[in-house]
Amino acid sequence: MIRAGVIGATGYAGVELVRLLLNHPQVSHISVSSVSFEGQHITDIYANLFQLCSGTLCGKSAGILETADEVVSESDVVFTALPHGTAEKYADACIREGKKLIDLSADFRFGRNEAVFKQWYKKSWEYPAAHEESVYGLPEMYREQIRGARIVGNPGCYVTSVTLGLLPALKAGCIDTGRIIADSKSGVTGAGRSPTMTNQFCECGESVSAYGVGAHRHQPEIVQNCSQAAGLPCTVVFTPHLVPMSRGILSTIYAPLAGDFSGSAGEITAELRNMYRAFYQHEPFVRVLADAKNPATRNVRGSNYCDIQVYAVANGTMLEAVSVLDNMVKGASGQAVQNMNIMCGFDETAGLQLIPAAF
Amino acid sequence: MIRAGVIGATGYAGVELVRLLLNHPQVSHISVSSVSFEGQHITDIYANLFQLCSGTLCGKSAGILETADEVVSESDVVFTALPHGTAEKYADACIREGKKLIDLSADFRFGRNEAVFKQWYKKSWEYPAAHEESVYGLPEMYREQIRGARIVGNPGCYVTSVTLGLLPALKAGCIDTGRIIADSKSGVTGAGRSPTMTNQFCECGESVSAYGVGAHRHQPEIVQNCSQAAGLPCTVVFTPHLVPMSRGILSTIYAPLAGDFSGSAGEITAELRNMYRAFYQHEPFVRVLADAKNPATRNVRGSNYCDIQVYAVANGTMLEAVSVLDNMVKGASGQAVQNMNIMCGFDETAGLQLIPAAF
Amino acid sequence: MIRAGVIGATGYAGVELVRLLLNHPQVSHISVSSVSFEGQHITDIYANLFQLCSGTLCGKSAGILETADEVVSESDVVFTALPHGTAEKYADACIREGKKLIDLSADFRFGRNEAVFKQWYKKSWEYPAAHEESVYGLPEMYREQIRGARIVGNPGCYVTSVTLGLLPALKAGCIDTGRIIADSKSGVTGAGRSPTMTNQFCECGESVSAYGVGAHRHQPEIVQNCSQAAGLPCTVVFTPHLVPMSRGILSTIYAPLAGDFSGSAGEITAELRNMYRAFYQHEPFVRVLADAKNPATRNVRGSNYCDIQVYAVANGTMLEAVSVLDNMVKGASGQAVQNMNIMCGFDETAGLQLIPAAF
Amino acid sequence: MIRAGVIGATGYAGVELVRLLLNHPQVSHISVSSVSFEGQHITDIYANLFQLCSGTLCGKSAGILETADEVVSESDVVFTALPHGTAEKYADACIREGKKLIDLSADFRFGRNEAVFKQWYKKSWEYPAAHEESVYGLPEMYREQIRGARIVGNPGCYVTSVTLGLLPALKAGCIDTGRIIADSKSGVTGAGRSPTMTNQFCECGESVSAYGVGAHRHQPEIVQNCSQAAGLPCTVVFTPHLVPMSRGILSTIYAPLAGDFSGSAGEITAELRNMYRAFYQHEPFVRVLADAKNPATRNVRGSNYCDIQVYAVANGTMLEAVSVLDNMVKGASGQAVQNMNIMCGFDETAGLQLIPAAF
Repeated sequence: MIRAGVIGATGYAGVELVRLLLNHPQVSHISVSSVSFEGQHITDIYANLFQLCSGTLCGKSAGILETADEVVSESDVVFTALPHGTAEKYADACIREGKKLIDLSADFRFGRNEAVFKQWYKKSWEYPAAHEESVYGLPEMYREQIRGARIVGNPGCYVTSVTLGLLPALKAGCIDTGRIIADSKSGVTGAGRSPTMTNQFCECGESVSAYGVGAHRHQPEIVQNCSQAAGLPCTVVFTPHLVPMSRGILSTIYAPLAGDFSGSAGEITAELRNMYRAFYQHEPFVRVLADAKNPATRNVRGSNYCDIQVYAVANGTMLEAVSVLDNMVKGASGQAVQNMNIMCGFDETAGLQLIPAAF
Repeated sequence: MIRAGVIGATGYAGVELVRLLLNHPQVSHISVSSVSFEGQHITDIYANLFQLCSGTLCGKSAGILETADEVVSESDVVFTALPHGTAEKYADACIREGKKLIDLSADFRFGRNEAVFKQWYKKSWEYPAAHEESVYGLPEMYREQIRGARIVGNPGCYVTSVTLGLLPALKAGCIDTGRIIADSKSGVTGAGRSPTMTNQFCECGESVSAYGVGAHRHQPEIVQNCSQAAGLPCTVVFTPHLVPMSRGILSTIYAPLAGDFSGSAGEITAELRNMYRAFYQHEPFVRVLADAKNPATRNVRGSNYCDIQVYAVANGTMLEAVSVLDNMVKGASGQAVQNMNIMCGFDETAGLQLIPAAF
Repeated sequence: MIRAGVIGATGYAGVELVRLLLNHPQVSHISVSSVSFEGQHITDIYANLFQLCSGTLCGKSAGILETADEVVSESDVVFTALPHGTAEKYADACIREGKKLIDLSADFRFGRNEAVFKQWYKKSWEYPAAHEESVYGLPEMYREQIRGARIVGNPGCYVTSVTLGLLPALKAGCIDTGRIIADSKSGVTGAGRSPTMTNQFCECGESVSAYGVGAHRHQPEIVQNCSQAAGLPCTVVFTPHLVPMSRGILSTIYAPLAGDFSGSAGEITAELRNMYRAFYQHEPFVRVLADAKNPATRNVRGSNYCDIQVYAVANGTMLEAVSVLDNMVKGASGQAVQNMNIMCGFDETAGLQLIPAAF
Repeated sequence: MIRAGVIGATGYAGVELVRLLLNHPQVSHISVSSVSFEGQHITDIYANLFQLCSGTLCGKSAGILETADEVVSESDVVFTALPHGTAEKYADACIREGKKLIDLSADFRFGRNEAVFKQWYKKSWEYPAAHEESVYGLPEMYREQIRGARIVGNPGCYVTSVTLGLLPALKAGCIDTGRIIADSKSGVTGAGRSPTMTNQFCECGESVSAYGVGAHRHQPEIVQNCSQAAGLPCTVVFTPHLVPMSRGILSTIYAPLAGDFSGSAGEITAELRNMYRAFYQHEPFVRVLADAKNPATRNVRGSNYCDIQVYAVANGTMLEAVSVLDNMVKGASGQAVQNMNIMCGFDETAGLQLIPAAF
């Protein structure tokens, strides 16, 4: 059993972490902090949690929002869900105090590559040592490194969606890595909790829009992952879109096939599907769909699953993968808990046995 | 541990039952049947359950859709989620075979009152003995009777919402039971799985409508419950509405106050809130909200909670209660599992420790 | 032809006015102002209007956001769509300069009754003369007064919905005016353009909530209208709710019948429907539905119609009316244009011949 | 003035046509037919049109659903909105009777190329002469041919969206036509009026999915248009997606640049935008957005506009275009009316001066 702490518990990723940790069999206690609401009870801000923090049902937390330092000292594993550029000092504190940290911002997603982080997030690092040992928190790529890590950088939501959708093909070296296109569609929780014109219901409801074209901060992270997986430089054109739902990301990924394929598009499709199924067969949270099934975000909503389907299109010359996940679970907080499970030697699915509803 | 069976597993209530039972600590096995899809695998119809029925994660069911008779024989507790008027013979079979049955249709909601059932559901009963012993499955009213029951009739979704919203006041005898108005707003899953013009996205999306005005079949069931609770005849005007979301019911209930109240509307409001909190303080699934909080269906979505707030309005002469629940959980399948827990002597919250998400 | 001006053109009611005025056959020019965006072009804020203000299609406006004083001086009819308590000085200016003014805030909705306005809107009046001559802008009640008015106070959105739903019965004196209940469900544009936690998509999407219970500012305005129409004091319990769509209000109104009715509920229903159809037969924008039709907000979306259905319920002892309109059109800007048409002697439907879409 | 007729008036495209024609200044009368509802009044099926067909406001139609033959004989211009493969005989009848026909199905979209039609729509042609003279109804490509046509095949909704998004680049010959990718996101009206599991609210609401991957019938039509515009064979990978809204299509189109471009991505972007603006400057219904604006379907909802933005991405080596339109207006019925205007010599914008709302 461990004691968990969430710094930044009142943002969306933070409260989603609390929801998952409350039902985690290996978590005995949850400490929470929030600068904006310090001193208040988390259920004052989040009525869904009313009576559920400390009570007969799932009670593991007094629910009082403390300071970040208090959270670090009361916890064995700390989750930071803060604005980019602010997690470092907590990582440093955790290292000194022998705690583990999983950061949900971008701060520890680039390993030692401060230049990329600085270019896209406009901040410099102050604690280089923490970055030296940090590990990228995508279990399907770095499970063994995560196992031994003290500091883990949890991936971006779009990034997980795109990376998992391409990973088998990248590892197999069967696509042209210079021509990858990732077209993603996300629910509005991706825009965060603070009300802005972006997430104002009347502005994004009943509408679809593109944004951040050619300029989204997840693009370099996708490139980093693809290049790592393929062992080659990759070019990725990434376009995010906002769709009128709260949760979910669907990514449609296109890459020309570059391997030794022959036969009809149907035959190559079958070959790709066998490749994907073999690659992911032991992964607890990736489901390669049956033939004749297309992914829908609804089928993974609220769960830690990523559903994938792969197709050979353009007469069998191009790979097309469709990948869906819940942006707040496998795209953020669920993945963070999965990383915690690995780091702590728990069953990797502990606290994540969430069944997606049919609606 | 018990073996559970779901007859009619491919309707929405049925698949929601499967979702809840898969993670139930006291359920060792789940059998499923469906007339429409007999022989197929439930995950062919419900992709959200892909790999989750029999597998390393939650596997408790082969997932093959069998016959209803097979389900009865393989189960200790049988859930029937069938069209109204078809559950009786399974109730009869369960009684003979020493199994328990929880029916999600209207068939066992009226006790021995065949006349009311016939008037509203246009069917006669063929197995009167089953009705003789059946118990109405609303734990907040009939927990002890449910405990000893073999046959339980699970309440209608709107009915649970309205009944719980008024129950403390009915029991206290402080409202005019001849003038109750219940105005309910429901998500579209309430219309069932079969595609019709009612649940066609373009017809009900981005729109609100009223339906079944003065003529909805839940009305007599609401009247039955209110009359039972108050010990007096009740008149209820019930109006359902369809709102563009999948899950949730919000009921706004109005009843003139008839008790000994004095003071300002604010003081009477406080008195009513104390009454409600006292009444529900030991109920695991009813939350009377803190002052300054208004109920929202989002705050109970996917969980078995019913949130309630009560107000004194019209200068303190009228009680107004707002009650929210998830129509498919506390309004149907979650309540059914809660009843099973009571009937089997399990912890009443087993398998129902579902935390509503913040979004 | 007249020149129109919109002060506060960048709020939702303001831009909806611009949309309607651009296609108005009697409007030759539109001036617009906005404090927040002075100097900018309205299409910088509202991309839907891109190229449509001054151009070959509907061009009537340079679209540059000027000052309010400039708008007054350039216009014959001025619309004010400002926060409550700020329209008075423009009304005063219009009177002095011989212009007409239609105000969309609450400032001129209470005639001379400053006390009610002050109680609910917390502001005092500085220009009593303007209030002396102002007329309440509900054509179905005050057409003749509007015709001769210089200053018109446009009704609140919920208020129009509820008032029209009850008006025939109030005029006929056939309901118990001491027991009126109005339960309304509104789309999110009713919350205004500024992003807040109320209209944040993830907070109000896929959810229904009640708010302002017993305390909404439209309540005294509803009471005022009902009392005026009935010639008796009225008590109204009004509860607004937020539903996850952009446009629309559906109001369900309950009032005990108090007249000389006999026969079955069906017969009384028919009688009420005849009464409503007769009352509204010459009203261009009120449609009493055919038998077997229930109102849906979708059927009036984007148009100036109010659809109504009326029923006798509770065994024919209670009137129930369901009324739908588009909160931004008949609930605000469309009604304002209708008032302008009456004030200027135009065809009352000019510029308002908007056909609701089927979806 | 002409008399218009709509055969298949009770499908979504049909009723949208009626909505547009009711307010068309050059249309004196509208006849409607529907096999499913023959003899009924269209307002029985479409309550939004209640009192609007024949009445003081927009009355141009008795609204009675007649036979298709009656519609042909009563009309000057006939619109057919029928299932694919059934419009031919009406085209033939119109030719013989000297009427004009605009078909909204796929039947006349392929010119003389029966082979392609047969391959994708599984039907043969019976009236080859009609196909001989038919013209593809995309004004931005074929205005002059449409002007002289008697039979026009109205384009598919996705097709218009993608074609307009690429047209300037295709005409300029500045993209690699062998590597075009079109990723489209559509509202649910695209699935038609009949209720199916595809458009059932609980199945598509609050979710995004991909469908028809590599196999959608609009793909050959997109290829046809691109090849025609470029004067070269084109390869197009087209993926449609379903998003939870009623109206709108957003297409994101990717094509490697192949022309003589130099400079930064920003400079090439500016060059492309100048190209697009110049190309479309006289088109009444295509708006190339200002810099810093990204398209959103909301900004064209209910109108005949197509908004486009173009970007140079991948370090200026790839063109990315984002194109939005209302699938039922510029994607279907609005475009059909635009074609009618051209064929009849009316102002091309007659009846189409629809201002998109801000919400």
